[in-house]
Amino acid sequence: MKPIRLDPPPELSMPIGEAMFSQRAIRRLKPDPIEKAHLKILLDAASKAPNGGNYQPGRYLFLRERSSVETFGALYHEAWWAKRRDEGHAWTRREEIPDDSVFRMPALLADEMRNAPLIVLAFGLHAGMAHSVFPGMQNLMLAARALGIGSTLTTLHPQVIDRVYALFDVPEQAEFHGCIPLGYPRGRFGPTSRRPTNTTTYAERWNQPPPW
Amino acid sequence: MKPIRLDPPPELSMPIGEAMFSQRAIRRLKPDPIEKAHLKILLDAASKAPNGGNYQPGRYLFLRERSSVETFGALYHEAWWAKRRDEGHAWTRREEIPDDSVFRMPALLADEMRNAPLIVLAFGLHAGMAHSVFPGMQNLMLAARALGIGSTLTTLHPQVIDRVYALFDVPEQAEFHGCIPLGYPRGRFGPTSRRPTNTTTYAERWNQPPPW
Repeated sequence: MKPIRLDPPPELSMPIGEAMFSQRAIRRLKPDPIEKAHLKILLDAASKAPNGGNYQPGRYLFLRERSSVETFGALYHEAWWAKRRDEGHAWTRREEIPDDSVFRMPALLADEMRNAPLIVLAFGLHAGMAHSVFPGMQNLMLAARALGIGSTLTTLHPQVIDRVYALFDVPEQAEFHGCIPLGYPRGRFGPTSRRPTNTTTYAERWNQPPPW
Repeated sequence: MKPIRLDPPPELSMPIGEAMFSQRAIRRLKPDPIEKAHLKILLDAASKAPNGGNYQPGRYLFLRERSSVETFGALYHEAWWAKRRDEGHAWTRREEIPDDSVFRMPALLADEMRNAPLIVLAFGLHAGMAHSVFPGMQNLMLAARALGIGSTLTTLHPQVIDRVYALFDVPEQAEFHGCIPLGYPRGRFGPTSRRPTNTTTYAERWNQPPPW
């Protein structure tokens, strides 16, 4: 349990700009397994992110066994559709979602989660630790990008949380923050589209544009 | 407001592993200003992080004017000491904190926030958007590391939040997630110490160690 210092793994040699600017959500995954050495690199990268007071409250539970992934995948599918129901959508099957809907690809993920070669669930040891867990999740996903592994960050509907906790013996006081399916992409990494940052950034006071 | 695609800035050429594994909290900052081109790179990097449904609810308010930074710094100082009071610490001045306390350096930041050349406050447009804001904050801090700019992620005590919102015209529905002072380091970047990841990672179920 003694804290350790680690050298950066040589596998993480991609320029940081390239990783960040081509990190798109990858939801269509090949079944090929992630090798153990790469799995450790992902978790080591997560551990290096900032966290309050270096208390390191982030805990990561990974699933690779087919039975775990399939059981979790079924719960994720139920959770995904429960969210759509709460939002008032009338769809009940993926085929009913319009082609131009932003929900098309996420719906595909709801079907495919059960085939992911790797799923990482992220928790805080206690409630209120988002600021000390999400930076690690982003490190994990960026490291995955540098290794050619695709990922996307997703959440769960409260309807299934108790069952997820029971299934994996997660203690009650731990707070679930998100789940990340990972695998080699069936599609490609590539540029993402975002609002120009002069519409999301304010200078000195809210709504005052920055100098660009 | 049309979404745009950006090429990675050539300034972000540092290998991602080097940036992640040497990203330590930098709290002692030189007064030298951050140039505008670098400021934009930081915000562009933040914008590229994953967010739910690409709704991009993250909003960043930066402070560079001396009057804004000093006023915010005074509120941050008050907030920092209010947290210590809530935790039951009897200290009321930095000099009273024991040398080996993890609060020594953060207390220094509480004093120095008012001198930071740049402070970025991060918000979600609505409540419940932590998963779509913190990954961007980590991108911003990693991009800063690659540019040789130090940062640390910190929060505020509820005692001062209303005044911060009023001071910068932040709308009530926006949720504050954290503030990041930035500047060139007076100290050095360097390795961080963390628990070995076989103590923070579980395989298939809680408390079951990973294969490393």
